[in-house]
Amino acid sequence: MPDDELISAHLQELRRGTVVLACLLILERPDYGYALLDRLERGGFAVDANTLYPLLRRLEKQGLLTSDWNTEESRPRKFYRTSDAGHALADALRRDWRQLDASFKTLDAHAIDSE
Amino acid sequence: MPDDELISAHLQELRRGTVVLACLLILERPDYGYALLDRLERGGFAVDANTLYPLLRRLEKQGLLTSDWNTEESRPRKFYRTSDAGHALADALRRDWRQLDASFKTLDAHAIDSE
Repeated sequence: MPDDELISAHLQELRRGTVVLACLLILERPDYGYALLDRLERGGFAVDANTLYPLLRRLEKQGLLTSDWNTEESRPRKFYRTSDAGHALADALRRDWRQLDASFKTLDAHAIDSE
Repeated sequence: MPDDELISAHLQELRRGTVVLACLLILERPDYGYALLDRLERGGFAVDANTLYPLLRRLEKQGLLTSDWNTEESRPRKFYRTSDAGHALADALRRDWRQLDASFKTLDAHAIDSE
């Protein structure tokens, strides 16, 4: 059995790109950082605040998210929303994910055939 | 629409960890680098030789693959095979992938609900 650190490094690598896709899908309904963190976790995409906040700023800079300050409540909060470009990217990533999933299923089927 | 370079960077990130899993699954049946490159491509996991060869050496160093020289043919070739540790890691990654896929399906379903 490989050691835990090695497994965790490889799992991390497998998950890395999925947080971007999950954010773009979730933020079709605008939300602020902390609430998004919670929605990601409940959705099965656990991520650290220290990873998420810089990611949100990067995605905004890339034009994939837009943001607005909500000042109606006592504490102003920055709400992020998926932009049209972000929506288009999410579609491309989602398609790619489905293709990869189909490829893995084919590999599984062959593995069973050859057992 | 985001520009092609941005899309391709995000697709790359989404795919990165999948090549490791694909190699571990495919190399349950031993093969040499060049043939693996071809099996990966036909399997839907296109990857560059310049990416794959260092990756194979890294996975061997991590004990996830073993290798043997086949000297029966005119040109000796190094055959890689998934080790027991590699098999265990592949199981862990496969489980994680399935969970992430289920999470994306749930997100999709919610997206449809709220449309």
